[in-house]
Amino acid sequence: MGKVFDAAEVAKHNTSKSCWVVLYGKVYDVTDFVSEHPGGANVILKLAGKDATEEYDPVHPSGTLEENLKPETFLGTIDPATIIKSEPQPGASGKTEEYPPVQSLLNMDEIEELATKKVSKKAWAYYYSAADDKITKRFNTEAFRSILLRPRVFIDCTECSLETKLLGNQVSMPIYVSPAAQARLGHPSGEAGIAEACGSFGALQIISNSASMTPEQIVANAAPGQAFGWQLYVQDDRNKSVKMIARVNKLSAIKFLVLTLDTPVMGKREDDQRSGNVINEITEIEAPEGSKEALEKQVFAGMDPSLTWTETLAWLEKQTSLPIVLKGIQTHEDAYIAGLHQSRVKGIILSNHGGRSLDTSPPAVHTLLEMRKYCPEVFDKVEVWIDGGVRRGTDVVKALCLGAKGVGIGRPPLWGLAAGGVDGVKRTLQILADETKTCMRLLGVQRLDQLGMQHINTRLLEQQVYDGPSNLAGYRVQYSSKL
Amino acid sequence: MGKVFDAAEVAKHNTSKSCWVVLYGKVYDVTDFVSEHPGGANVILKLAGKDATEEYDPVHPSGTLEENLKPETFLGTIDPATIIKSEPQPGASGKTEEYPPVQSLLNMDEIEELATKKVSKKAWAYYYSAADDKITKRFNTEAFRSILLRPRVFIDCTECSLETKLLGNQVSMPIYVSPAAQARLGHPSGEAGIAEACGSFGALQIISNSASMTPEQIVANAAPGQAFGWQLYVQDDRNKSVKMIARVNKLSAIKFLVLTLDTPVMGKREDDQRSGNVINEITEIEAPEGSKEALEKQVFAGMDPSLTWTETLAWLEKQTSLPIVLKGIQTHEDAYIAGLHQSRVKGIILSNHGGRSLDTSPPAVHTLLEMRKYCPEVFDKVEVWIDGGVRRGTDVVKALCLGAKGVGIGRPPLWGLAAGGVDGVKRTLQILADETKTCMRLLGVQRLDQLGMQHINTRLLEQQVYDGPSNLAGYRVQYSSKL
Amino acid sequence: MGKVFDAAEVAKHNTSKSCWVVLYGKVYDVTDFVSEHPGGANVILKLAGKDATEEYDPVHPSGTLEENLKPETFLGTIDPATIIKSEPQPGASGKTEEYPPVQSLLNMDEIEELATKKVSKKAWAYYYSAADDKITKRFNTEAFRSILLRPRVFIDCTECSLETKLLGNQVSMPIYVSPAAQARLGHPSGEAGIAEACGSFGALQIISNSASMTPEQIVANAAPGQAFGWQLYVQDDRNKSVKMIARVNKLSAIKFLVLTLDTPVMGKREDDQRSGNVINEITEIEAPEGSKEALEKQVFAGMDPSLTWTETLAWLEKQTSLPIVLKGIQTHEDAYIAGLHQSRVKGIILSNHGGRSLDTSPPAVHTLLEMRKYCPEVFDKVEVWIDGGVRRGTDVVKALCLGAKGVGIGRPPLWGLAAGGVDGVKRTLQILADETKTCMRLLGVQRLDQLGMQHINTRLLEQQVYDGPSNLAGYRVQYSSKL
Amino acid sequence: MGKVFDAAEVAKHNTSKSCWVVLYGKVYDVTDFVSEHPGGANVILKLAGKDATEEYDPVHPSGTLEENLKPETFLGTIDPATIIKSEPQPGASGKTEEYPPVQSLLNMDEIEELATKKVSKKAWAYYYSAADDKITKRFNTEAFRSILLRPRVFIDCTECSLETKLLGNQVSMPIYVSPAAQARLGHPSGEAGIAEACGSFGALQIISNSASMTPEQIVANAAPGQAFGWQLYVQDDRNKSVKMIARVNKLSAIKFLVLTLDTPVMGKREDDQRSGNVINEITEIEAPEGSKEALEKQVFAGMDPSLTWTETLAWLEKQTSLPIVLKGIQTHEDAYIAGLHQSRVKGIILSNHGGRSLDTSPPAVHTLLEMRKYCPEVFDKVEVWIDGGVRRGTDVVKALCLGAKGVGIGRPPLWGLAAGGVDGVKRTLQILADETKTCMRLLGVQRLDQLGMQHINTRLLEQQVYDGPSNLAGYRVQYSSKL
Repeated sequence: MGKVFDAAEVAKHNTSKSCWVVLYGKVYDVTDFVSEHPGGANVILKLAGKDATEEYDPVHPSGTLEENLKPETFLGTIDPATIIKSEPQPGASGKTEEYPPVQSLLNMDEIEELATKKVSKKAWAYYYSAADDKITKRFNTEAFRSILLRPRVFIDCTECSLETKLLGNQVSMPIYVSPAAQARLGHPSGEAGIAEACGSFGALQIISNSASMTPEQIVANAAPGQAFGWQLYVQDDRNKSVKMIARVNKLSAIKFLVLTLDTPVMGKREDDQRSGNVINEITEIEAPEGSKEALEKQVFAGMDPSLTWTETLAWLEKQTSLPIVLKGIQTHEDAYIAGLHQSRVKGIILSNHGGRSLDTSPPAVHTLLEMRKYCPEVFDKVEVWIDGGVRRGTDVVKALCLGAKGVGIGRPPLWGLAAGGVDGVKRTLQILADETKTCMRLLGVQRLDQLGMQHINTRLLEQQVYDGPSNLAGYRVQYSSKL
Repeated sequence: MGKVFDAAEVAKHNTSKSCWVVLYGKVYDVTDFVSEHPGGANVILKLAGKDATEEYDPVHPSGTLEENLKPETFLGTIDPATIIKSEPQPGASGKTEEYPPVQSLLNMDEIEELATKKVSKKAWAYYYSAADDKITKRFNTEAFRSILLRPRVFIDCTECSLETKLLGNQVSMPIYVSPAAQARLGHPSGEAGIAEACGSFGALQIISNSASMTPEQIVANAAPGQAFGWQLYVQDDRNKSVKMIARVNKLSAIKFLVLTLDTPVMGKREDDQRSGNVINEITEIEAPEGSKEALEKQVFAGMDPSLTWTETLAWLEKQTSLPIVLKGIQTHEDAYIAGLHQSRVKGIILSNHGGRSLDTSPPAVHTLLEMRKYCPEVFDKVEVWIDGGVRRGTDVVKALCLGAKGVGIGRPPLWGLAAGGVDGVKRTLQILADETKTCMRLLGVQRLDQLGMQHINTRLLEQQVYDGPSNLAGYRVQYSSKL
Repeated sequence: MGKVFDAAEVAKHNTSKSCWVVLYGKVYDVTDFVSEHPGGANVILKLAGKDATEEYDPVHPSGTLEENLKPETFLGTIDPATIIKSEPQPGASGKTEEYPPVQSLLNMDEIEELATKKVSKKAWAYYYSAADDKITKRFNTEAFRSILLRPRVFIDCTECSLETKLLGNQVSMPIYVSPAAQARLGHPSGEAGIAEACGSFGALQIISNSASMTPEQIVANAAPGQAFGWQLYVQDDRNKSVKMIARVNKLSAIKFLVLTLDTPVMGKREDDQRSGNVINEITEIEAPEGSKEALEKQVFAGMDPSLTWTETLAWLEKQTSLPIVLKGIQTHEDAYIAGLHQSRVKGIILSNHGGRSLDTSPPAVHTLLEMRKYCPEVFDKVEVWIDGGVRRGTDVVKALCLGAKGVGIGRPPLWGLAAGGVDGVKRTLQILADETKTCMRLLGVQRLDQLGMQHINTRLLEQQVYDGPSNLAGYRVQYSSKL
Repeated sequence: MGKVFDAAEVAKHNTSKSCWVVLYGKVYDVTDFVSEHPGGANVILKLAGKDATEEYDPVHPSGTLEENLKPETFLGTIDPATIIKSEPQPGASGKTEEYPPVQSLLNMDEIEELATKKVSKKAWAYYYSAADDKITKRFNTEAFRSILLRPRVFIDCTECSLETKLLGNQVSMPIYVSPAAQARLGHPSGEAGIAEACGSFGALQIISNSASMTPEQIVANAAPGQAFGWQLYVQDDRNKSVKMIARVNKLSAIKFLVLTLDTPVMGKREDDQRSGNVINEITEIEAPEGSKEALEKQVFAGMDPSLTWTETLAWLEKQTSLPIVLKGIQTHEDAYIAGLHQSRVKGIILSNHGGRSLDTSPPAVHTLLEMRKYCPEVFDKVEVWIDGGVRRGTDVVKALCLGAKGVGIGRPPLWGLAAGGVDGVKRTLQILADETKTCMRLLGVQRLDQLGMQHINTRLLEQQVYDGPSNLAGYRVQYSSKL
C-alpha cells in the first residue's frame, strides 16, 4: 500500500496549492481535483490536511472515489495513531437510551421531533431547509388542511383497501417515497434501509440521483415484486448521465425514470447555507469583489440548466426504454404540454421540491385544481402524482380525491430513518397507511377509485387558484408538429 | 367466598399465559378473556396480577363483570392487607379547598379550566382529545364565532322564553346533553348526576351507549316529565344490541333512540392514545412485523362497521317502536337521504362527534348552510339538531337561526360534572341558558320560533361552504323504491 | 345632627335583616332599601355595617342619596375616630411621580396604558370590559384597520379644517364624546372635567344617563356655544325619566336627547363581573336553586325593556322639544325605520355599545355599508353618527367617507381622564384631531364634505357585510300609517 | 480666529433668550436662528450651551452652516480642553469584533438585524419608523408574499440577465436605490458610500433632497456611465428649490428629477417622535394650551403643501430640462393623470413612502393591479417604477411581472450601510440581484422583458383591490385642455 504518512506531514498540505486529504485510511493528493469538485472547492479546502472520512462517507455512494480521482492521486496510507480526527457531530453522542421507541411515536411531527434530536446539525439542516422564508414549505401542508372532508354515513366500510397500481406496478398503497438525497446522513442504513422498509409494506420508492448509496446497493435486497423508480438530474457532462442511465437500465427492480425539472438552478436554502452544507462559491469567495461576472456562476453544481421539451426528451428516449416521469410540474400549462408528449411521458409529478426550490411557488393541490379547471383531460393522458407537505392520511386522501394517483413523501422517510433506522421508516409508512385507511372508512369508501370531488370541499383553496391568462392552443400547435 | 389469596400469589399471574386480576376484593382468572376484551388485550395485561378496581370501576357500568366473565373465572377473595394498590391518579389529591366554587365560574372556559385541574390525566385526555391535529375541534367553535348577529332595537323584550319541544317532548330549553361516555371518570355521580341536573332545569339528555352506568341507574330518579334519549352503537354481535334495546324499551323515561353513524371506525385521538386510554392493538403489538394484514384490524372494538340505510333501519325498526334519530350526518346528501326515510327517521343530528372522528370534517353550521342551499325541504321532514363546539349562548342562537331545533353540548356537561358534580352541571346549564336568553333579548326576540336567517350574517361562512357536485335525484330513485 | 354612633355599634347591623351604612359621616338604616337598590342588593350588603363612602361616592351623582332614602333612614353621625375604613383601592397609591406626563403620550394605546396603571382595578374593569369573549370589541377596531385609504397627490392642502355642524350645532371637529358612565371612578373631576376639555376644543359631548355627576354640574362651566347631548335610558318607573327629562329641558347647553336602544338587558361583561362591579343577582344568590323562574329576572336594573317605536317615541315627544337621536342602531332595517320616523328622529348613532352589549354584533362600519347597499336614502333623512373602536384619526376619516357625520369616542376620553384629568382628555382630543387632519391632508382633502367613497377601499369589508333577506317595503307599510 | 471661549462660559447661553452652540470647534450665537430652524426650535435648544457637533454633523450636508448662519453669528473658537461632550450614542461602542462579517449575511433581515445592533437608537428610529401602527409598512412586504409564482419547466435558463434601461439609462439590474435621507446617521461614508456600491454594480441611485451630503459630494466619484436621479421636495421658499435645481442641473451624472408628492405633510412616525428625531412643535410646546390655532401649524418643516398638477409642473419645467418623475402615486386616478401629462412626466413611482406617510395606504402592488384594471394604457405612456417592502428577489420579479420597470429599495441600503459601510451596501445589492436571477431561472425566464402576468398568481390580492367609483373621463377633460 505504499508509503505510510504521519498525520503531521499530511497536515502541512492544507491549501489550494497543495491539498491532501485522508479517506478510509488512505492519503490522496486532491490538489488538481479541488476546482472540479461538484460540491464546490471550499468543502474540500476546509478538510485539507485532515482525515475527511467522517464528512465524506455519508454523502458519497461507494465508487465515487474511484470514479473521480485518478490512480496517481493515491499517495499511501496514514499511520492511524497520528490521525487528527475532525470534530464529532453534535447529536451523535449515542445517548439513545433517553429517546422514546419509534413504536410509541404517533404522527409525522413526533417522528421529526425525535429525528431532530438524534441527527447532526448538518443533517438536520439538509433535511429541514427550504427556499428563502419557507413560505411554500409551510403552505404545502396548510393547503391540505384548508380542504375539508365530507364524511358519508351508513355505508359498509368493513373492507377497505389501499391497493393500487402506479405506472402499472402493483403496490399496496398509493403512498410512495420521493427521491431525497443523502439518507446516510441520517442513518448508516441509508437508502437501502428505506428500501427494506418499503419492501415490507409493498410501497414504491424513487431513488435519488444524489443518493448516498449506489442504485445497485439500494435495490440489492428488493422484495419480490418490489418496484423502484430512479431519479435523473441531467448532468452538464451528458456522458456521466448516459453512463448512469445505462447502469440503471440493467437493474430490473427499477421500473421507470423520473426526470426532475424544478431545480435547473438550486433554490436558496438558508438553513443549509448556515450549516455549511452548501458552499455558495460566489458569496464566500468572489462576491467581495462584487463583479458582475460573479453573478453568472451560481448554478447547481454539475446540473444542466439547458433542458428543453423537444431536445431532452428525444435524447432521453434513446438512453432507455423505461417509462419516463417528469417531476416538478407546477402549472397547468406544463401539465398540458406533458400530456402532448404522452408518447414519451407516462407520468408527471406535481411538486415544488418540498418548497426547496422557489419560495412562494404553489403547492401541488393548487396545480391539481388548476388542471381541473384548464385541462382536465390531462388526467387521462398521463398518470398524475404529487408530493410536498403530506403529513397525514387525510392529506393523502385529499390529493387522491383531486385526481392524483400517487402521493409522495420526501422528508418523512428521512426523519423516520434518522429517528429509528429501518424501523423508523416502517413506522412512518404504517402511520400514514393507517391514517389513510381510517380516513377512507370514515368517508364511507372501500377502494381508492371511489374517491372523488364529492368527498372534499375545496372552496377556500379555489378562491386562491390561478385564473389568469393561458395559451394551451398555442402549445398544441408548437409541440404537436414535433412529435 | 372460597379461597383467600395473598396478593403476592396473585402477582405471579401477570402474563397472557396466566392472567389474574382483583376486582372489588375478588380474584378472577381472566386468561381466556384477555383476547376478547373489547378495549383491547393490553389494557388488561397492564393490570395483570394487580388490584384493577380503581381502573376498572369508573369505566364499566355495573353488571359488566357478570355479563362478560363466566362463573368459573372467580377464584376467591384477596386478603386486603396484602393488596398492591395501583398508583393514585394525579389530580385526585383531594386538595379541593384551593378551587373556586362553581357558582363563581362565568363561562364554559372557566368550567373546563377548573375541571382540568381536578380530574386525572386519563379523564382529561378522554374528554379533551379529538382527531389528529384537532382542526375540526377548533373549527367547530370558530365557525360559530365567524357568524355575526344582527340585533334589532325598539322591540319589547320583557318576556323571553326558551321553552320548546324536542321530538314532541316539552323541554325548558333547546340545549340538550349529547351522549358522552364515561362520566364517572370525572365524578362519582356520573351520568346519573348529569340526569339530576337536567331534571332540575327541564333539559333533555341523551345517554351514551358507553355510559359508565346502566340506563336503569341513570333514569332512576328522573323528574316528572323528564325526557331522555338513548344512544345506540350497533355491535358486531347484534345480539348484544338486541338485548340492550330490549332493556331500553322498558324504560318509559327514554323517549327515542339515537343511532350514531359517524364513527364506524374510531378516529385517531392522540391525547387519548398517549394517556393509555386507547390501546392501539396493531401499533403496539403487531405493527413491528409490518404485515399488511395487520392494517385490516384497526376497527372500533365491537362496533359494527357494516351498517347501511336499508338493512340497518329495517332491522332497528323491528327492535323498537321508539322514534329513531340519526347522529353524525355531515353532508346535505345524507341529510337528504334521511329525509327520504322520514317514515322511520324522525330526527337527525348534524355532528362531527366533537371533532373526535375525522379531522378537517365540517362543523355542523356548514352542514346547516349546505342543507339550506341544496335541500331546504329536509327541515320540514325531520327534526334537525346539531352539536359540536357550542360554548356560548350566542352559539346556540346562531344554530337555531340556521334551522336547528335542538342544540347539543357534549364536553361542557362532562367538564361541569368534573368541576363540581351535580352543581357543576347545573352551573353549565344555567350559564348557557342565561346567555341564550340575553342574546335573544338583545336581538329583540321573545320566542325561539321567531329566530331566523334575518338575525344572523353568515357571509364569511358561506364563502367556505361546499358548492361541488350533488346527486339528490339519484338518491331519490335509489331509496324511494325500497321504502 | 342627632346621635353620634360608634363604628363598632354600626358594624353589628351588617345583614339583610338590619343593614346600616355610613355615608359622608352620616349613619343610615338602609334595611328597607336593600331590595330596591338598582345596582342589586349584594352591592349594599357587602358594605353593610361599614363606611361605604369611598365605594359610593364616585358612582353616584350628588342628590342621589336624598332622592332615594326617606328622611327617617337617617340615624345620626359617626364618631370619625372609630370608623373602619374599607380597603384602599390598588392603583390609588399616589406614586404619580413614576408616570410620564400626558403631553408625552403619542396615541390612544399609550393613554390607555397609563390610565390602566393609575386607576383602581374596579374602574379599569368597568371601562375595559365588553361582552363575552370581546370579539366585537376587537372587531370594532380591526374593521377600521381593514379599510385602506387612497391618498391623492398634487392637491393644495395648505388649508385643512375639521369644522362641521352636528345636528345644527357648530363644532370644531366631527369627533364627539360618547355617553359613558362613572367618569369619577377614573378621576375626581369626572364628567365636568371632560366637559372642560371639550369646551376648550369646541367638541361636542353626550352626557351619560348614568353619569357620576348631575347634568347641572357637568354643564355648569360650559364655554360659550359649547353643545351637549343627554343620554336617556328609559326607566321601568317612567316617572323617574319624566323628572330627569324635565331637568334636562331646563339646561340650555343641552341641545338634543340620545335614546339608547342597544341595551334593553345588560350584556355579559365578565371583567366587570369578576371585579364585583356587577352583581349578578341570579347567579350569586338564586342560581344554586336552579329554579327556572330565576332565569326570568336577569334584567338591567331599573331599565325598561319594553320600548317600541310607536309607543316610546310618542311618549318621548311629549316630554321634550329637543331633537331626538337614537343610539344603538345595528342593522339597515332599523336605520330605515328610523328614517320613516324622521319627523321625530333627527339622528341615529350606529353603535354596538363599544362591544359591551352583544358579542359578535357588527361594528358600525358594517352597518354603514349595509345602509349604502340597502337604503342609502336614509343618509338624507337623518344625521348618521357612529361610535365604537375609534382609535386613530384614520378611523375617523374612514367613517366620514362612508357617510357618517359624527364620530364618537367612548373609552378614550375616560382613559384620558384617568391618565391625566382634564389635561388627559385634552391630550386625547388633540391627538385624534391632529391625526384626522394629517390624514385629510395626505388624502388631498381640505374640508370634511369632500370626503367620500373614492377615498377608501372597503373591498375586504364588503365581502363580510350582510346580504341576506330584507323587508323594507313591509316596514314602510307598518309604520307609515302610524306617523 | 477671534476670541477663545471657555466651555463654562458657553454653557451659560443655554436658553432661547441667549443661545450659543459649538460646531466643529467654533462658537456661534444662534439666538436669532432658533425660531427659523426647519427641524424645530427644540432640537437646537436641547443643545444650547453645548458642543453640538456630534448631533449636527451626520444630518447636515456640508455648506449648511454657511448657508443658514450670518457671518456675525460666529463668535470665536472653543478651548478644546474645556468642552462638555454630549453623551456618546448607544451602539457606537466600537465593539465591532463581536459582529459577523457582512459577507456571511444571507438576506435583508439579517442585514437589518446587524445594523440594528450597530447604529444609535436615533438612527435606528429614523430608519425603522413608519406611520401610526405600521400597518402599511408590514402590508408592503406581506402583499408581495401573498402573490404566488408560477415556475415553468424544461426551458433553457443557462443564460439569465438583469440588464435593462431605466428612463433610457443602461443599468445592470432593475433594482435601484430609493431616495432616503441621512445616510451618515448610519455610517460616515454616507450617501457617497451608497454611490460607490451602486457604481460597482451598475445600479441606479436616487439622491434624497434631505441627504446628509451634498449632491456634488455624492456623485463626485461616479463610475463611468453611472446614473443618478435627484429627489426634490419643493420648499415653501421656492428660491431655495430653484437654487438647488440649478446646482443639480450642472451635475452630468444626475439624469432625472424625482418630485416626491406623498408627503405634503409629515406622517406620524411615533418611533421617530419617541427618539427625539422629530420634534412635534405643537404637542411639546403649544399643545398644553389646546388652542385651535395650534392645530393649523403641524406642517412639514419648510415643505410646500400647495403643489398642484398644472402650476407646479409648469414651474418645474422652467427650472430644468431633466426628465421628471413623480414619486408617491398611490391610485390609478393619479397614475392616469400623470399619463395625461406625459409631455412633462416621463415616469411615475408607485410608493407609499415606505409606509411612513399615511397608515393603511395601499402597497404599490395594489396600485399596479388597480392600473391594470382601470387604465392599463398608462404603462405605455410613462415608465412605472415602484418601491416599498421589497426584501427578496422574488418581490422584485413579482413587481416586474405586474408591469413595473424599476424596483426601488429604501431601507435595505441604509441597513446595509449601517451594517458594513460600502461593503454592506454591496452585500445588499448582491443578495437581491442573486435572488432575482435565481427566481427568473426557476420561472424559466432569461430576460426581464419576458416576465408577465402568466408568471404570477395574484388572486388573493385581486380580491382586495379597489373596485369603487372612478372618473377618468372627467380628468381627461380637466387636464387635456391645460396641456
